[in-house]
Amino acid sequence: MDNKVEYITRLFQRTSSKAIENYCLTRLWHKLDNDEIKIIPQQYVGRHTDKYALTDIYLPQFKLHIEVNEPAHYVSNDRILADEMRKKEIEKNTGHKLLVIDCRPDLKEIHKQIDDIVTEINNQVTIQKKNGTFKPWQPDIESNPNHWKNIGTIKTSDEIWFRNIEDICKLFDADFNKTKRGFQRRGGIFHPNSNTHLLWWPSEKTRSGWLNTLSQDEREIIETHSDSNTKATHYNNHLNSPQKRIVFFHHKDLLGLTSYKFKGVFAYDSSKSSPSIGTVWKMVENELKINLDE
Amino acid sequence: MDNKVEYITRLFQRTSSKAIENYCLTRLWHKLDNDEIKIIPQQYVGRHTDKYALTDIYLPQFKLHIEVNEPAHYVSNDRILADEMRKKEIEKNTGHKLLVIDCRPDLKEIHKQIDDIVTEINNQVTIQKKNGTFKPWQPDIESNPNHWKNIGTIKTSDEIWFRNIEDICKLFDADFNKTKRGFQRRGGIFHPNSNTHLLWWPSEKTRSGWLNTLSQDEREIIETHSDSNTKATHYNNHLNSPQKRIVFFHHKDLLGLTSYKFKGVFAYDSSKSSPSIGTVWKMVENELKINLDE
Repeated sequence: MDNKVEYITRLFQRTSSKAIENYCLTRLWHKLDNDEIKIIPQQYVGRHTDKYALTDIYLPQFKLHIEVNEPAHYVSNDRILADEMRKKEIEKNTGHKLLVIDCRPDLKEIHKQIDDIVTEINNQVTIQKKNGTFKPWQPDIESNPNHWKNIGTIKTSDEIWFRNIEDICKLFDADFNKTKRGFQRRGGIFHPNSNTHLLWWPSEKTRSGWLNTLSQDEREIIETHSDSNTKATHYNNHLNSPQKRIVFFHHKDLLGLTSYKFKGVFAYDSSKSSPSIGTVWKMVENELKINLDE
Repeated sequence: MDNKVEYITRLFQRTSSKAIENYCLTRLWHKLDNDEIKIIPQQYVGRHTDKYALTDIYLPQFKLHIEVNEPAHYVSNDRILADEMRKKEIEKNTGHKLLVIDCRPDLKEIHKQIDDIVTEINNQVTIQKKNGTFKPWQPDIESNPNHWKNIGTIKTSDEIWFRNIEDICKLFDADFNKTKRGFQRRGGIFHPNSNTHLLWWPSEKTRSGWLNTLSQDEREIIETHSDSNTKATHYNNHLNSPQKRIVFFHHKDLLGLTSYKFKGVFAYDSSKSSPSIGTVWKMVENELKINLDE
């Protein structure tokens, strides 16, 4: 199936348990009627220490979040105030805009709210196209290693992902055969130009006892093992590691699609790593020159 | 919640397990952008003896069925031929039109097919409005007894349904108190102008052992009881019954909404009723003057 068809139909399915959110999302998409616009569900947003929010819909090209508020959001003044505070925090912390669709009124009034958002987005598209800053949604390109090789730099904000490890190797001109270890697959291999930069594809799934956990804000990975001996050995082997890990996190995304997604360059976190927790890697760069040139 | 919001959001949810059908349906609805148009899912269509079809989407105002064909529909010539035969049979038996959306191509091409259907429907709306034949979708009216009392006639094609038995009584000026039997509810009461016409609200749910089954083509109801003695007594009591039963079938529809829906006037079917099967009622009229005047 076409990549866009697969993505969007899954996105609709993903929200189908919330009837009114699904309705607003489908209307937004179909009324925009522009398959160069990307829509992301449940976008993570930091609020303040230890608190975060997931917004219903996020349009990265316009730094625009949309919340679909069911009638239950308006049952009490406390709830209304809490929602307003949440909106302010999100806008302040991200510099993004957050728009709210109030689903209490009838169909015509709900439609009007969505149509207003559509108009606003279309205006943004016009402005960005005039300025030459519009980046169309191109899922076939996001996941094409040759495309990024030509550009020479990868950034987490470009939402780069690959279908398999072979494509990661292609991007860096790394030898795919080195990823094999008998019938198994190595967890990573060194960058062809460096013996400190590791191309790493940790998985959210446990593999032969190894477990990697990516934090909600995607700035930290805890690497550990279910066997306490292996865990201790690994911790000691990597104590104060000088490695830079170029991370392609293997996971099933919200839409159920499995991929290796670029999450940035990570380095050893000496303040958090410990024999009991495991080895902790923290994000140090959100972009990278592919050939490692400074 | 607004009746239309409830109906449409449930309709979308209902089809959410089929990702591509859901996508096409939501696009059709939002691009039509006309809340006077009614969409029905899974419409029953007779094909030939003992065979029937359920079409994906039906628009009763335009007698138009729409089928969303996933790529699997085109895997073999046999399958393609079978689909073509099905389309011809449905169109011949109903006098309706059936349009097919082929979901093999990419997003733009799928969009084009849907947009063509939208154009066709909009043309129909324009023609019907010019001719004064357009009947807007008005769920609040479909279920309002006073509206139908003013009109004086009810037809199955008007998709009339009520939320409760009280509203059925209102329609016929029948005494709602007569429906009560202690803490129980009678299965029906006589029309105030007749001792042969019964206002009947059989339920698809078993009630105190009574079981009523409406056939797929909605032209037959089998009335029976789980207890064989009660079943036999009931059969004998109604043998060659002269009753005309004005049927409001109590059921949960495809969208999960419970209601009493007008299914026509039913009479005793002597050829099918039997002590073993139970009492069989067959549809004899699909419309009715509310005051029973000829």
